[in-house]
Amino acid sequence: MEKTMDKIVALAKSRGFVYPGSEIYGGLANTWDYGNLGVELKNNVKRAWWKKFIMENPYNVGVDCAILMNPQTWVASGHLGGFSDPLMDCKECHERFRADKLIEDFCADNDIQLENSVDAWSQEEMKGFIDEHKIPCPSCGKHNFTDIRQFNLMFKTFQGVTEDAKNTVYLRPETAQGIFVNFKNVQRTSRKKVPFGIGQIGKSFRNEITPGNFTFRTREFEQMELEFFCKPGTDLDWFQYWRQFCIDWLKNLGIKDDEMRARDHSPEELCFYSKGTTDIEFLFPFGWGELWGIADRTDYDLTQHQNVSGQDMSYFDDESKEKYIPYVIEPSLGADRVVLAFLCSAYDEEELEGGDVRTVLHFHPALAPVKIGVLPLSKKLNEGAEKVFETLSKKWNCEYDDRGNIGKRYRRQDEIGTPFCVTYDFDSETDGAVTVRDRDTMEQERVKIEDLVSYFEKKMEF
Amino acid sequence: MEKTMDKIVALAKSRGFVYPGSEIYGGLANTWDYGNLGVELKNNVKRAWWKKFIMENPYNVGVDCAILMNPQTWVASGHLGGFSDPLMDCKECHERFRADKLIEDFCADNDIQLENSVDAWSQEEMKGFIDEHKIPCPSCGKHNFTDIRQFNLMFKTFQGVTEDAKNTVYLRPETAQGIFVNFKNVQRTSRKKVPFGIGQIGKSFRNEITPGNFTFRTREFEQMELEFFCKPGTDLDWFQYWRQFCIDWLKNLGIKDDEMRARDHSPEELCFYSKGTTDIEFLFPFGWGELWGIADRTDYDLTQHQNVSGQDMSYFDDESKEKYIPYVIEPSLGADRVVLAFLCSAYDEEELEGGDVRTVLHFHPALAPVKIGVLPLSKKLNEGAEKVFETLSKKWNCEYDDRGNIGKRYRRQDEIGTPFCVTYDFDSETDGAVTVRDRDTMEQERVKIEDLVSYFEKKMEF
Repeated sequence: MEKTMDKIVALAKSRGFVYPGSEIYGGLANTWDYGNLGVELKNNVKRAWWKKFIMENPYNVGVDCAILMNPQTWVASGHLGGFSDPLMDCKECHERFRADKLIEDFCADNDIQLENSVDAWSQEEMKGFIDEHKIPCPSCGKHNFTDIRQFNLMFKTFQGVTEDAKNTVYLRPETAQGIFVNFKNVQRTSRKKVPFGIGQIGKSFRNEITPGNFTFRTREFEQMELEFFCKPGTDLDWFQYWRQFCIDWLKNLGIKDDEMRARDHSPEELCFYSKGTTDIEFLFPFGWGELWGIADRTDYDLTQHQNVSGQDMSYFDDESKEKYIPYVIEPSLGADRVVLAFLCSAYDEEELEGGDVRTVLHFHPALAPVKIGVLPLSKKLNEGAEKVFETLSKKWNCEYDDRGNIGKRYRRQDEIGTPFCVTYDFDSETDGAVTVRDRDTMEQERVKIEDLVSYFEKKMEF
Repeated sequence: MEKTMDKIVALAKSRGFVYPGSEIYGGLANTWDYGNLGVELKNNVKRAWWKKFIMENPYNVGVDCAILMNPQTWVASGHLGGFSDPLMDCKECHERFRADKLIEDFCADNDIQLENSVDAWSQEEMKGFIDEHKIPCPSCGKHNFTDIRQFNLMFKTFQGVTEDAKNTVYLRPETAQGIFVNFKNVQRTSRKKVPFGIGQIGKSFRNEITPGNFTFRTREFEQMELEFFCKPGTDLDWFQYWRQFCIDWLKNLGIKDDEMRARDHSPEELCFYSKGTTDIEFLFPFGWGELWGIADRTDYDLTQHQNVSGQDMSYFDDESKEKYIPYVIEPSLGADRVVLAFLCSAYDEEELEGGDVRTVLHFHPALAPVKIGVLPLSKKLNEGAEKVFETLSKKWNCEYDDRGNIGKRYRRQDEIGTPFCVTYDFDSETDGAVTVRDRDTMEQERVKIEDLVSYFEKKMEF
């Protein structure tokens, strides 16, 4: 079977994972709403991250910072100065393009190999290349472009009554800076010693010119970022530690080896302040896409904030009696992207005996939006089945379904990725047991009702 | 002891519940960041809401919608037209005021009783009252104001490259509208029949002129909203049902009867479309403040969206074969406010035998940021104690503390509201048991290490 985005988007919409945003009004350019199943899946992904990166991890604590920050933050981080896309208009048809994308697409279409990434080119180099190759407008085919100009990707708004420069604030383009500005606060209140990390989950906003690929690239998106502070000199070890930790997290939640690769940046690709960067990529139906950036950012961020704020951002090491600005390892993950990766990875169409095909989402039980479907074999059995549902619902998100024949109800639970179905039948009334069906093996097992909670607790472990 | 905001704000900052936002840059008008304990407290509050309102509730499902919505949404909801504050400037000192607040404060200071709420007055009535009473400027004392003008409270921004009307979008001022526009989508994908509800937790933004009282009123805030759809005629019963459900939720999480009141709106106070509204208020140190608004909104919202979008928002009732637009009961809770209420409610200073005072946060175990403190009596016992910590950390957020004398460590855990401390002592090495200390009673109990998980599971139940 072919796993296509069309199939996945259609399933997502029809089963309540993801709807187009503001759909009754014709949508709003590439915004998406998580539906009744999507919100559970996304919450489970966020919980799985928090559990492994914060709760169980002895080094790390969390924060939850405001989206609106003092604009000086973006001076220090470089976002006000340099966080921009190179744009140009076609003078003929007035369409607008990203110059770097135009070049990349042109080279891909014409099998031109570039020596280094267009990202690193100057505006003049891009303009020169476009003119030299007479790259045509993808929309009207003419070659008549304006000059390139930089377009800042931060959304701006006004806080207070007047819309002037004094009141201009920005929607954060990343959650990382909320962590950096609070480095000293968190270190003090958590009484952590270096090495330690601070994690955050939250919305960020980037005014992308070309969002797309469903929820892969959106203007409004959620991040799960960790900033791990360590002593200079130990940073490359910690970089390797977190690089592996991230890979293991994905694997333990069901991402397969052949769907994932870790792409280490070459020295030319690295930001000037970075000692090492790895992108963990996932093989989406539309190709490889970045999920996780893991970077050794040295002391760049804290130093920038120290310089711009005038506040001391250094750390005093009790043991070595040294004072230093810690180095930072940043594993930065897009929540919406990794949710999409889990959805794509889980999707399968299986041919069954007899030629039937079942659509099934093989989610890890920790991620599945519905953990257990409770299915009375007959509506006459509702009373007993509802009691089972009530008990299990206190622990897990469950679904109760008494409509249609049992085979169809299993198919429906398969299609939304429910790992276990509990069938309450006429025997249950006398033997106090139910049949538990496994989504993946389709095998059934008889389990005592009183043992169900402990039975499932083991199954859900992560 | 006197419970003051000053004490609570100071504890919040020093222990990592809440820091001023962007603090190293001098802050940003009334933004706040949740620190290492605050993020856990807030997440626990959100989980407790989700558990009772969505997961365990047989009627309800959740969604998670985009903050940026098609602007037609705000035409339909009335926010573009009418969601504004009446502002006026002092011509002498150029300070800006909310006219309604100016009148309310003046009346309070001068013991003037008003017949109806200033909210309901027209601009002309406000202006007339201010002039008639020669209300002075609170800043300079003169009486020389501009006319009143309406200031829309929605934050606006621009999506796309150009900053013009076509690209203007708004940060949602409430999460409710994401639910209404998805009513048909969710009904279809969840296969729910009326009555059913859709809940959402997420950030909203209001450009308030006078935010204040710590995290009580902020421009960026998080909401936990439920829209419950029912058949017209059954709405007042469901209104009572949810009114009581909300009160019970607060009580079960430790809010005491004398800290809480339900204020039913008088007929004059009701919005024109509402058949009933109740505010559940909490007694903060600064006075009574609204936590929860529970309103019978009739079919107002869905009808508005039907009219503006041209999409059918009605529901076909299988059983009665009727087609109708459902009525809506909306219990709308501010997450930051109720977190602050739990913090204020939990705060206590207790005089102990011998005259010592301990500061303690009496959080419900389900809300406490740290559930269990693991304290080895001596650093020599770290190996065994760490094993206990590791086991418990898989289930709950725990803290490991081996620094200082045991009394001081208990005090520290009391101050951050940790309900249980596990002390691993020299006997533990031989008897395989630990001492569990209860935060509230300060009583101690010996528990086998192998029984700890089931012992605490019972304690944490909610």
